[in-house]
Parts: sequence; structure tokens; C-alpha cells
Amino acid sequence: MAKASPRKDLVAGELLEQAAALFAERGFAATSLQDIADAMGISRPALYYYIKSKEDLLSQLVEGMTEPIAAYVTELRRSDLPAEEKIATFVRSTVTRIAASAARFRLLDRSEPDLPPSVLRKHEQGKRRVLEHLRGMLAEGVQSGEFRPLDERIVAFSILGTINWVAWWYHEGGGSTIDEVADEMVRMIIAGITRTDGRRPEPGLKGAFGLLREDLSHLERLLGF
Amino acid sequence: MAKASPRKDLVAGELLEQAAALFAERGFAATSLQDIADAMGISRPALYYYIKSKEDLLSQLVEGMTEPIAAYVTELRRSDLPAEEKIATFVRSTVTRIAASAARFRLLDRSEPDLPPSVLRKHEQGKRRVLEHLRGMLAEGVQSGEFRPLDERIVAFSILGTINWVAWWYHEGGGSTIDEVADEMVRMIIAGITRTDGRRPEPGLKGAFGLLREDLSHLERLLGF
Repeated sequence: MAKASPRKDLVAGELLEQAAALFAERGFAATSLQDIADAMGISRPALYYYIKSKEDLLSQLVEGMTEPIAAYVTELRRSDLPAEEKIATFVRSTVTRIAASAARFRLLDRSEPDLPPSVLRKHEQGKRRVLEHLRGMLAEGVQSGEFRPLDERIVAFSILGTINWVAWWYHEGGGSTIDEVADEMVRMIIAGITRTDGRRPEPGLKGAFGLLREDLSHLERLLGF
Repeated sequence: MAKASPRKDLVAGELLEQAAALFAERGFAATSLQDIADAMGISRPALYYYIKSKEDLLSQLVEGMTEPIAAYVTELRRSDLPAEEKIATFVRSTVTRIAASAARFRLLDRSEPDLPPSVLRKHEQGKRRVLEHLRGMLAEGVQSGEFRPLDERIVAFSILGTINWVAWWYHEGGGSTIDEVADEMVRMIIAGITRTDGRRPEPGLKGAFGLLREDLSHLERLLGF
């Protein structure tokens, strides 16, 4: 995409949110470019400055949502952060991104059957990359001993479910800031997958001695015995 | 609902899944009762034996999905299981239920704007009850010390996101059984919220001795010192 002016970017972003809201309300087929121009309070010729057609608009919706998430996770996976930090960073950044464009996210997700084939292909490639790299980061963490042995596919989908769902329930001013949501989700997800989380003792003395025995083995390993 | 014969129940269940699949593919408005009869391979008069109208059918979809989940969680909350077991049981049973009726679940969830008001009201009441009791069970666990201090609302939505998402990605024969999915989700969610999950040691000898010290205190408490 050609570099646009900040003003053009701002209008273009607003346009995508408005269009997404209209599509979500009335469906793709029933929404015309004229409706979108009306909702934006601009003329139809002015609208053509930003988008060429409804298909172009859908394509921009995917480019502005699925693709940036996929690009981000690809880069994150290549970084040399510990696996735990990669997962935490992914959760935090994706939750924030989804909350900021919730209408667009819901629309893309729920209208997959209506997307034109070329747009659908891009969208699905993006989703596949996200899943693949998320699984990869989980596998790295299991390998390094940061994470407990886990089923990477199920855990990846569980994490995606938690963060994608934000688009359906989170509203600004609804009791928590998006940072509080992201923090709580990171705590829950990281505690749910890191290795020492399994150290929940059996009840009673047997469990207590079991923990002590584990601690001694851990200490022995550290001391090289 | 009047008690029906097992045969009628079987056909009715199949009818709901078929109708849900057609609605999801073509939309509510574009799907006629004739289309549903055709898909079932029965006559339209025969169809009227099971449903009176499209609205009746939607109402049955909600009665067969949102309401049983809400009834189940209400009962579970009243039980005297420990909070941890309540949450685990809720996750396990809901994941299984959602996977068994994935098309219906997706349809209800994604077609909320199209539901007739009376059906929507039932559906939303059901969803509210699920959220309320899930939050309540989390609060109980925090109260009893089973769970770490957590934001019940955010954690409830996180759990719902993880389990609801199953309707969008799980396919039988896709690599995991639904029991494996439920087991992994229970492990992850319980580890993510229980109190001892914070026991991640600092690296090195300091961490190892820290663990020993914690576990000795645990033992001392158990022995009443």
C-alpha cells in the first residue's frame, strides 16, 4: 500500500469501522457504497478516494486485521525472547488490537462464508500463520522446560478462544480497562501452561513430602550431583 | 415441553442440526420450511409434526442449547462440590455439549441480531445465568482460598471464550477426541486460577532454597507446629 497522509489514514480507519458496523447490521449484500458514504457523511465520489469497491473494502478489512496479527506473531516467534514472554506479549498485543477494532474483528470472523474467494484466501492464510506460530512458540516452551508437557494444538486454540472472545464481550467503560483484561488473561494463561504450575501437592503429609522430595531433586540437579 | 417418543426425539434433534446448518449457510430469511423439509427428505406436512413455524424452530434451538447449559450451571453452583471441581465439571460438560451441537451453537451465537425478540430474550437470559453462576463459583473459590485472588468477570469471560471457541475449530477425527480437548482445557484453566499456581521458583539456588522453605512451612502447618 502507498504511504498515505495521517489525515487520510484517520478517515480510512473510521471508514473501515463504519463499514464493518453497517455490514454487521445489514449484511454485505444489503449494504451499498452509498450507505457507507451516508454513514460517513461524505459524498460517494469522496468515498472513491478511499476505496474502489465493496470488494476492495473487504480486502482492506483483512489487510488491517488478520494480516497485522499474523505479521506480528511471525516476528515475535523469530525473536529470542523466552517462550513465556513471547506468549505473554502475543496475548497482550492481540487483546489490545482486537478490543480496538471489535466491530471489524466480529465482522470478519462471522462473515467468512460471505467473503469473496480472494479475500477469504488472505484471511485464512493469516489465521493459519497465527495458529502455526502460536503452536510453535508453545512447542519451544515445552522443549526448553518453561512449559509443562501440553497438547500445543488444543492449548493454542484455547488461547485464541480466550483472546478472540474479547471482541464479543468487552466494552470500554464496562468495568475494566483493556490493560486490566490483558493482565488478567496473561496471568491466567501463563499460570495455566508453565511447568511449575503442576506443583499442586496431593493433600496431606504425603503431598507435602512429595513436594520436598521434588525440591531436593531440583537442588541436586542444580548442584550437579 | 410434552414428553416425546425416543423416535420423535431423534428426528427432532436431527431436524434442529439440519435447520441450523441451512440457516448458517443461507441465512434465516432465505431459508424456508420447505428447504428444511427437503434437506430432511420428508414432506412439509410431516415437518409440521415437529415444528409449527420458523420461529418455533428457533425457539427450540435455544431451548435445546442455551437453556440446558444455564440449567446445568445453576444446579452445579448449588451443589456442595469444592469450587475447583465445580469449574472443572462445568468446563468438561459444556465443551462436550458444544462439540456435539457445534452447528447449532455457532448459529445461535452468530445470528443473535436475527432472532425474534421473544427467542432472543430467552437466549440472553440463559447466557446471563451462565455468566452469573460461573462468576459466583469463581468467587466461592477465591473466598475458600482454592483460587488466587482474581477478577471473576474477566476470568469468567476467558473461560467462556476458551470453551465456546470449540464450536469453531473442533472436528471429530481432527487429531484429538473431545475428551482429550476437555482434559487439556481443564488442566490449563484450573492451573490458571488455583492458588498454588504462583509457585514458580526464581532461577538458581536461591529459588531452590525458596521452594524448600515454602514446602517446609507447608509441612509444619500440616503437623500443627
